[in-house]
Amino acid sequence: MRDLAAHPGLLSLNTATVRERWTLEEIIEGCARHGIRRISPWRDQVAKCGLAKAAKLIRTYGLRLSGYCRGGMFPAADEAGRARARDDNRRALDEALTVGAECLVLVVGGLPHGSKDLAGARMQVEEGIAWLLEQARVAGMKLAIEPLHPMYAADRACVNTLAQANDMCDRLGDGVGVAVDVYHVWWDPALEAEIARAGRTGRIYAFHVCDWLVPTTDLLLDRGMMGDGVIDLPRIRGWVEAAGYKGAVEVEIFSAANWWKRDPDEVLAVVKERYRTVC
Amino acid sequence: MRDLAAHPGLLSLNTATVRERWTLEEIIEGCARHGIRRISPWRDQVAKCGLAKAAKLIRTYGLRLSGYCRGGMFPAADEAGRARARDDNRRALDEALTVGAECLVLVVGGLPHGSKDLAGARMQVEEGIAWLLEQARVAGMKLAIEPLHPMYAADRACVNTLAQANDMCDRLGDGVGVAVDVYHVWWDPALEAEIARAGRTGRIYAFHVCDWLVPTTDLLLDRGMMGDGVIDLPRIRGWVEAAGYKGAVEVEIFSAANWWKRDPDEVLAVVKERYRTVC
Repeated sequence: MRDLAAHPGLLSLNTATVRERWTLEEIIEGCARHGIRRISPWRDQVAKCGLAKAAKLIRTYGLRLSGYCRGGMFPAADEAGRARARDDNRRALDEALTVGAECLVLVVGGLPHGSKDLAGARMQVEEGIAWLLEQARVAGMKLAIEPLHPMYAADRACVNTLAQANDMCDRLGDGVGVAVDVYHVWWDPALEAEIARAGRTGRIYAFHVCDWLVPTTDLLLDRGMMGDGVIDLPRIRGWVEAAGYKGAVEVEIFSAANWWKRDPDEVLAVVKERYRTVC
Repeated sequence: MRDLAAHPGLLSLNTATVRERWTLEEIIEGCARHGIRRISPWRDQVAKCGLAKAAKLIRTYGLRLSGYCRGGMFPAADEAGRARARDDNRRALDEALTVGAECLVLVVGGLPHGSKDLAGARMQVEEGIAWLLEQARVAGMKLAIEPLHPMYAADRACVNTLAQANDMCDRLGDGVGVAVDVYHVWWDPALEAEIARAGRTGRIYAFHVCDWLVPTTDLLLDRGMMGDGVIDLPRIRGWVEAAGYKGAVEVEIFSAANWWKRDPDEVLAVVKERYRTVC
């Protein structure tokens, strides 16, 4: 297992972690100031900065991109909606290429409005990824399916376990893998086995950390800083690394009431300290 | 698949659904008034009423008990805590026998305070159930493990999928089965297969319904009335009944901001209507 304190360069900042108080430009400068060498930016932040400018800043600062957030949201109530989703994913793919991301992260989408057909939504997801994958392969961009916590099955992602993502990857073939985010999968009794399974095909493209707080007061925006919750981070990272993962440890914290309100310089200092000591 | 409109007697009211405004006595009278013939009461309500009196009322009104809520909460930080949990479960078993419940529902408990050892908590759960099961078998009381939604893994129940509960039942043997609550399991890609698996051993002891609202604003107390959310209730009930389940359809709604505030007579009227039309 890697000694993170000896490898500060593996730390990646998902830019959502400080999104409320810093623009992408400020985040890039902040990361440089704090010696953080990797980021994973969000499309809306990149759009606000301007794609060309964002790409240039990333090159100028020599940042590596552990991922690009995000493609997905495939299911729709009708064909027009699915076509819009495909167009949007094509753009996300192009942007990921422009900024030089190591993978495009897919939050696959939930039930179409008014639908209760979860199996149908899952089929739409797989069809959408299959469509995107053809282009991603040509472009040389990896697609990382991120299984989301089951509490998001209705409205964000109907891929909810690593087993399900692995099954999908088996059917889809080369070029698509998984993003393992501890927040979404820590509870899964099959986690160790499914991480090992993903590793056997070299399919773990990203590893995200934060923590599960007790109590959790909001379904979306109450993620904890690593060490403040109940997730056994070293255990899960150990499984991921035993499965052959050699990439970044990406910190992604949505925290409306706490971390998003703090001075981002303080947040980054805490992120670095926790990365060294509790991940 | 059973036609619920033709079988009103299968409806069971989990008494938590109207717990904020009615005592157990009022609930029993209210169910009689509404022609609801089955309930599943909670221990604290029974204690407040008095166990003997509750048992007598249940007999007087000829109510069937689709379950008794609840045993479980096995993991603890030390042996003294585990001993207290065993004592409490022994009392829950005795109460379930006294009131004549068809099964004792187990919400198994989460991580002990300060612990991140999820695998260890799961072992404690299995040991606790094994201990209780010896006595439950002698007493002739079935134990129903209720897998809870993964968002409760830390603080309520570390059994989070039907597969996990089935595995546990396989190891524990006769007398222990599962309670399938759609709220907890609707998202599970393996649900149909695991319901069928549970059915093959005659292990489905209870079936609970409510609905998953979009958005869900509280992790615990924002469950929806059947039909108001995104769960495909007939589909899941079809799987459960195809697996051989012949028991009650138990309505259990925790809803602090909505249903708990309404007149319980109105709630029961809506429950009956939705039971007939959308379950």
